[in-house]
Amino acid sequence: MKLIHGGVTAPKGFAASGIYAGIKKKRKDIALVYSAHPAKGAGTFTSNVVKAAPVLWDLKLTKESENIQAIVINSGVANACTGEEGDKNNLLMAETVAKELQIPISSVYTASTGVIGKQLPIDIITAAIPTLVKELDDKVEAGSLAAESIMTTDTFSKECALTCLIGGKEVTVGGMAKGSGMIHPNMATLIGVVTTDISISKELLQEAISEDVKHSFNMISVDRDTSTNDSLLVLANGMAANYEIREKNEDYYEFCKALNTVTTKLSKMIAADGEGATKLLEVTVKGAKDHEEAVILSKSIITSNLVKTAVFGNDANWGRILCAMGYSGVDFDPYKVDLTIESEDGSLKLVEDGMATDYSEDLASKILSAKEVKAIANINQGKAYATAWGCDFSYDYVKINADYRS
Amino acid sequence: MKLIHGGVTAPKGFAASGIYAGIKKKRKDIALVYSAHPAKGAGTFTSNVVKAAPVLWDLKLTKESENIQAIVINSGVANACTGEEGDKNNLLMAETVAKELQIPISSVYTASTGVIGKQLPIDIITAAIPTLVKELDDKVEAGSLAAESIMTTDTFSKECALTCLIGGKEVTVGGMAKGSGMIHPNMATLIGVVTTDISISKELLQEAISEDVKHSFNMISVDRDTSTNDSLLVLANGMAANYEIREKNEDYYEFCKALNTVTTKLSKMIAADGEGATKLLEVTVKGAKDHEEAVILSKSIITSNLVKTAVFGNDANWGRILCAMGYSGVDFDPYKVDLTIESEDGSLKLVEDGMATDYSEDLASKILSAKEVKAIANINQGKAYATAWGCDFSYDYVKINADYRS
Repeated sequence: MKLIHGGVTAPKGFAASGIYAGIKKKRKDIALVYSAHPAKGAGTFTSNVVKAAPVLWDLKLTKESENIQAIVINSGVANACTGEEGDKNNLLMAETVAKELQIPISSVYTASTGVIGKQLPIDIITAAIPTLVKELDDKVEAGSLAAESIMTTDTFSKECALTCLIGGKEVTVGGMAKGSGMIHPNMATLIGVVTTDISISKELLQEAISEDVKHSFNMISVDRDTSTNDSLLVLANGMAANYEIREKNEDYYEFCKALNTVTTKLSKMIAADGEGATKLLEVTVKGAKDHEEAVILSKSIITSNLVKTAVFGNDANWGRILCAMGYSGVDFDPYKVDLTIESEDGSLKLVEDGMATDYSEDLASKILSAKEVKAIANINQGKAYATAWGCDFSYDYVKINADYRS
Repeated sequence: MKLIHGGVTAPKGFAASGIYAGIKKKRKDIALVYSAHPAKGAGTFTSNVVKAAPVLWDLKLTKESENIQAIVINSGVANACTGEEGDKNNLLMAETVAKELQIPISSVYTASTGVIGKQLPIDIITAAIPTLVKELDDKVEAGSLAAESIMTTDTFSKECALTCLIGGKEVTVGGMAKGSGMIHPNMATLIGVVTTDISISKELLQEAISEDVKHSFNMISVDRDTSTNDSLLVLANGMAANYEIREKNEDYYEFCKALNTVTTKLSKMIAADGEGATKLLEVTVKGAKDHEEAVILSKSIITSNLVKTAVFGNDANWGRILCAMGYSGVDFDPYKVDLTIESEDGSLKLVEDGMATDYSEDLASKILSAKEVKAIANINQGKAYATAWGCDFSYDYVKINADYRS
């Protein structure tokens, strides 16, 4: 497996584009991903009862459509809580793309991100689509333009790609995502697109991604707010010409590994770029009775405002970590907990058997001041573990969200 | 029922004191509440698996002790995650109070609030207790000193009292509380003390307070972090000389009403004084199928960082409210939701049938800029309702918690 430069256009047969349509004030706001060859489509979506129009549409296609060839994504307006008009606008967006690309409308996934409750400026969008299609290109740069166009409060665009050998063929997996706020995926995520040229059955592609998000996108949290629009879409167009994966053989697990490398990289980028974040926080809980308990504990720590503000302040206030574990709902013995923090500046055990070690506050503060900080809690009652990613909590989160719409 | 001036010393037979012992840098840090007459004791405590030493002690007394006469509370250090030494220090604190007051140690509740993981400076505490006992007084001012001494990051002290007629006798209920951060009680709360001169059986006193917190203290949230030390302690010394309440008769329900008035007032004060808060936010969810669903929905709104930052910014970003309802886990039809905001500056329907009304953003912003803001969401699928209290989320929350220990 080898990381390569690029994103969604890295796999064979994929092109992309991203332009400024005029939905947002200044920044690029509409993106397209296209596979010349009909691809299998799979996706995972928000568990929020309030689902945006594009989410409902994609859910339908994922169930009913054999082939997907395009994904159109706008930023600026989420098309959520928009009623029948929202559904109509979403269809119009898909229809215009289908017409321009001369493919069936049932081959076009849609996604929207931005303010909830506003209608899409659909005239602006349909007017921009012909240009969007004309700009499609399979170069690395085109993928980057697409990644840039789906950003909202993101401070950098997020993409990555890798190649690996599966069934004797070179297979490429690429991806892009946007995150930043309202980030607490559950059963799905924000907006992410993964493309691959692997040949795999639709069922196994769906199973691979559904299993994958449990360990990647669903393990990040910026603010505990699960969005109305979370969507992770995957296209596999088969152009790597490997023997089609139809069962859970060695090739399948090799693909899952490649997929997880891409989704984990994107997840960590999203966590690190959380609204107002100054650093990436990685929390591993070890020694749990089972995986589920490790997940609950690590997420409880990563989502605690008090833990996040302490990390922002480089303050080794470990009591808040134990407290967050304590109210998670998981039963454990507080006096068996060990806690270590780590970064490029060193490693330090803060807690042994539930009580403070004789650690140096200065060294702890130095470790916490790095750009990537890890906390490892061992509850010593089993062998299961889980890792979650989040970020610290700074003044800027408040600033960004107090006047998001203005 | 009549609100009166005062707090824990308002009911007959109660005295209190609050002094500076030297646990904190400057502010008063130890308080005592005392009933000359042996009182029935009841309490509700944190559901956090990590329980502070005083919580474990009070739980034991609540179960085993027939009479309680004193409550000693220190601020500055929480005595949580402190192991055997923490238990020993807690006992020493209770023992010293018992000795000075010449009452059994089994009559002394304890409570601590402050930093987790540090040992109590027990010598300073035991040295201060004789003065604390000497200063006991039944005046209103003494209750206020006690309320002041239990503050941590609170910006004002919280107390209230009322009188009512029960069984033909004048009964008084008084209370004090501290809140501010790590406020997301579950099955219990922060630190609160309620005193009353009513005569009631221990069992019914416990039942009254256990039921009450579901509608008062457990309905507030500042930051979703359920502390290790949450304790609400109630003493009833019987000096009102009413016929002892031993069954759920009219007198019992009258007492519950009085109790709820005091606990709700204290709860709202805590919510309004949340760390960094600039306003009180009251959320009512109506039209739910049952009370439990209404509770889940209202708490999901009140705890959303995105809702809280929008309220701080006076931004009627109602999509975030619907989003928070949507990920709460309760099933409802988004297109049946109505949403109204209210304050002294007016009332405005923002959402009807799940979509924006044609409201004025200027008026919405004006309403949200008041010191007390209400949001009322009707999901129109039943008759149950619940109200929760919280606060907005400002830069100061981050500031306070990024350098809490420094």
